[in-house]
Amino acid sequence: MPIYKPIPSVKVLAFDIFGTVVDWRSGVASQVNQIAKENGVHLDGGAFADAWRSRYLPSMDLVRRKEIPWMNLDALHRRSADDLLAEFRVGDAFDEPAREELVRSWHRLPPWEDVREGLSRLRKRYILTALSNGGFALLTHMAKEAGLPFDCILSAELCQHYKPDREVYLMAAQMLDTKPEEIVMVAAHKWDIEGAKAAGLHSAFVERPKEKGPNGRADRISDVSVDIGVHDFLELAKELGC
Amino acid sequence: MPIYKPIPSVKVLAFDIFGTVVDWRSGVASQVNQIAKENGVHLDGGAFADAWRSRYLPSMDLVRRKEIPWMNLDALHRRSADDLLAEFRVGDAFDEPAREELVRSWHRLPPWEDVREGLSRLRKRYILTALSNGGFALLTHMAKEAGLPFDCILSAELCQHYKPDREVYLMAAQMLDTKPEEIVMVAAHKWDIEGAKAAGLHSAFVERPKEKGPNGRADRISDVSVDIGVHDFLELAKELGC
Repeated sequence: MPIYKPIPSVKVLAFDIFGTVVDWRSGVASQVNQIAKENGVHLDGGAFADAWRSRYLPSMDLVRRKEIPWMNLDALHRRSADDLLAEFRVGDAFDEPAREELVRSWHRLPPWEDVREGLSRLRKRYILTALSNGGFALLTHMAKEAGLPFDCILSAELCQHYKPDREVYLMAAQMLDTKPEEIVMVAAHKWDIEGAKAAGLHSAFVERPKEKGPNGRADRISDVSVDIGVHDFLELAKELGC
Repeated sequence: MPIYKPIPSVKVLAFDIFGTVVDWRSGVASQVNQIAKENGVHLDGGAFADAWRSRYLPSMDLVRRKEIPWMNLDALHRRSADDLLAEFRVGDAFDEPAREELVRSWHRLPPWEDVREGLSRLRKRYILTALSNGGFALLTHMAKEAGLPFDCILSAELCQHYKPDREVYLMAAQMLDTKPEEIVMVAAHKWDIEGAKAAGLHSAFVERPKEKGPNGRADRISDVSVDIGVHDFLELAKELGC
């Protein structure tokens, strides 16, 4: 185990959500299976979730490069879902309400098992915020339904930029009236950690090896250069003195 | 007691904070007394709090009329405090850190005694958000320290307008992905209720007769035309089926 240097004067922990806090793949897969069944067709939920998520970064990149106007993650998820339903040859089975329901599956995702206890411990000492590319309503619904004890919700939607644009990380510092270095970005993805560091935040990487399912490759601690690298939120609490 | 018509399809309760959720006068007065004492002078905390609050709406009106550029409530509180310390002839006793501490007193205010239980009951059925002219950091600090179980924090700062500008109420609807009429604005002030109604929100007035201290006159239920008028958050919970 590496020995991490203590980070002075941290006030805020900002949490990435998809993959870091919640298991998007299992959650989306099971809801896709269910919604398909209700609409009289079979869909491989895991394969659909993987295909959907594979369009996540590319779809945000269209906004980041200003090739399409700002739209929140629900709208990007809908664009991708419309394409994928055609690709999976089940487009006719999904009417407008069914497609909306599909998009809403991203609002209801199960947290990893260490999350609630870890956040509860961390909350006693730090301000905890979500800081995700998910929309504000999505994140609020998710935190409420999953019982995530954040002190507030911050979304990329508030500044109409997507991570890893530095505007998102700096918006968190501005809204919480802190210096960037008083925030630790907690994430399971190398690109997010690197974006946070470039904006002047501290960083904690949490390894989530199951994030991308049996065939996907998740980032590992050894892939990233961070202030703190941990395997779950209980270890994070320990490293941060909680 | 009037009989209120049920409001169909309410999803969100949006709470004004100063006066509605927290007792700003007692909270600011006691901290002003304490900070003055630490700086070697006497100040009448209650009188100072009243004078400070009397500048609240006029200072926001300067922003609303675009006579001064956008600044958040901490900055407006600081402007007013600088003037008032001179008026109270204690300016020399308050250095920069003491003035910052004074402004921070608005981040730490006690909730009325019915608030925590009322919000806890309402939270089971509705999404609860702060919707205040206080800054985002101020509201986050307040909710955390006072143990207010909001699902999210929304501040006028997010749209750089102050209530009763309609932009603030409509920002809440946009961020929470609801129609305006799916939100009930809960407030203790007629001007806020009227702003919310003008933006298409439903409204609940809560009477807080002690808000302005022994000599101040708070708005009363009979002063306003609302969907629901109550005396505290427990009555509000009952009216809303919680």
